[in-house]
Amino acid sequence: MIIDVHGHFTTTPEQVGEFRIRQVAQFNRDGTVLTDPPTVSDHEIRAGIEPNQLARMKERGIDLTLFSPKAVGMDHHQGNEATNVVWARYSNDLVARVCRMFPDHFVGVGQLPQAAGAPPRQAVFDEIRRGVEELGFVGFNLNPDPTGGRWSDPPLWDKDWWYPLYEQLVHWKVPAMIHVSGSCNPHFNAVATHYINGDTTAFVQCLTSDVFRDFPDLKFILPHGGGAVPYHWGRYRGLAQDMGLPTLEEKVLHNVFFDTCVYHQPGIDLMLSVLPAQNILFASETFGAVNGIDPRTGHHYDHTRRYLEASPAATHEVRKRIYAENAHGVYPRLRPRC
Amino acid sequence: MIIDVHGHFTTTPEQVGEFRIRQVAQFNRDGTVLTDPPTVSDHEIRAGIEPNQLARMKERGIDLTLFSPKAVGMDHHQGNEATNVVWARYSNDLVARVCRMFPDHFVGVGQLPQAAGAPPRQAVFDEIRRGVEELGFVGFNLNPDPTGGRWSDPPLWDKDWWYPLYEQLVHWKVPAMIHVSGSCNPHFNAVATHYINGDTTAFVQCLTSDVFRDFPDLKFILPHGGGAVPYHWGRYRGLAQDMGLPTLEEKVLHNVFFDTCVYHQPGIDLMLSVLPAQNILFASETFGAVNGIDPRTGHHYDHTRRYLEASPAATHEVRKRIYAENAHGVYPRLRPRC
Repeated sequence: MIIDVHGHFTTTPEQVGEFRIRQVAQFNRDGTVLTDPPTVSDHEIRAGIEPNQLARMKERGIDLTLFSPKAVGMDHHQGNEATNVVWARYSNDLVARVCRMFPDHFVGVGQLPQAAGAPPRQAVFDEIRRGVEELGFVGFNLNPDPTGGRWSDPPLWDKDWWYPLYEQLVHWKVPAMIHVSGSCNPHFNAVATHYINGDTTAFVQCLTSDVFRDFPDLKFILPHGGGAVPYHWGRYRGLAQDMGLPTLEEKVLHNVFFDTCVYHQPGIDLMLSVLPAQNILFASETFGAVNGIDPRTGHHYDHTRRYLEASPAATHEVRKRIYAENAHGVYPRLRPRC
Repeated sequence: MIIDVHGHFTTTPEQVGEFRIRQVAQFNRDGTVLTDPPTVSDHEIRAGIEPNQLARMKERGIDLTLFSPKAVGMDHHQGNEATNVVWARYSNDLVARVCRMFPDHFVGVGQLPQAAGAPPRQAVFDEIRRGVEELGFVGFNLNPDPTGGRWSDPPLWDKDWWYPLYEQLVHWKVPAMIHVSGSCNPHFNAVATHYINGDTTAFVQCLTSDVFRDFPDLKFILPHGGGAVPYHWGRYRGLAQDMGLPTLEEKVLHNVFFDTCVYHQPGIDLMLSVLPAQNILFASETFGAVNGIDPRTGHHYDHTRRYLEASPAATHEVRKRIYAENAHGVYPRLRPRC
């Protein structure tokens, strides 16, 4: 059993993205909220999934993908809470349809209707409840910077801003993948810079705060191999020590997990050599940030299973944990599904 | 010969930091500029250097350090251009005194009087000229985010903002280490987050722009092992390919160099396995971000020479390049000094 915990519906038909463009344009024009997203047929969903994500999963021997709306499309820094509720519900419904149409291959993870300047509150909590109870979702993507690269709303340790959301995540037994969306800051290319910086930023916020003392059952997944963190594991161990904090293992590794979206062999080798195997979850984010074939190997850069199979640290036991067992621990709602 | 390209005067006597605090406080109070920094005696300089940086260099067999003012103390996001000229001149003069007092062990690298909201202009160019001609400096630290974690001034590819500075750097044959300073954004811990994110951000700005087409002789050093970049080398290779850009080697590696401030063995091993040896410069940033001793090894985390000596990829020839030869290429003004 091989579970990929990080896939997005990046192949929706054109009218989906066009709706969001129209919605944002109208909101910017007169502040009103477009609430009637266009229909998508079963045929269009199948045409998006079958020759793309599903074909790639079959090629690579991936049994199940935890599937969520396109990350860069979450777009929390545009519109407001009202537009973003419409957009999140629409995006989540499309993911839920994929999961219903291909129940052996996809399980849903939801987009939250966050909005810049608005703390996560009832609208977000309602979508978590709906996602779990009505759509069968097993987790959610939490955007640590809904201001899109301005980083001007409060950090993850802010009790007033974030703790009510953490209470909901714990209540519904769903982990959060900490995943930024697009960037409106010209300093940060979304997938090349903002994604990676977002992962590193979230890790340090967890390390230097009491989030997991206050929510011992809260679980975060850091995508893209945890940004810069494993490469600088010695720096973070040393900084924690200089700050008088517990070890990284005690302070964050009960609650923070890293996916394997690192697109070359030395990166995966490093990850496996510094992180405990129980903190690593298999993922490839296909079709995602990087679509090409590496001319040095003849394989897609994002074919992360190849790197895991070839890594000297990946014994059969380690691979079993990374491919499936750890995911069952992190996503308790996944267990009855598999 | 072993050259450490990344050291800071973090051990100045108390009155130095206190002056900056008073200067910023007065500026915030009434907008006036304190221009009379306190004197520092030769004895105080010696007391800062001899038992600290110099002792550590001797223990570790490091012959020469490229020495600059404390990075987190550059503090460009506070004050204005006028305060920051006073502060940069004072900080640079102290570094120059270290270099004059210990000419066999330290060569100077300067702080620029950048200021949030002010493009690098005459005040900055004057300090480059003074640094090179009067203080014997061989390089400068360039802060890609003088807004201190707000990232609200233009990116490094902005022609109007940055190109006049690049002209000066090329004219004076001095490379720039791209090094952020403190953070006033609560999302970003300075040394744990902002430093690392700054390195990654700068790399992508170089990759996705024409800076080095327009300035083929400009050279940048990315500190802290290049942030997340080597760990995500496959991602960056793949993104460049998807964007239709030349390879990373063609697009950035003629101009961008990475220091070895990565504080554990697997990080250095990864760096050596993905970057060409000619793009790596030895550095430890001692005394810098991480001061403790790793209980797993019994050695300081920042004793980077140990990792290099132990790395399977570091042949004698590779180490020679990383320890000294590459630095002579990147810092042409260093050659006559050694």
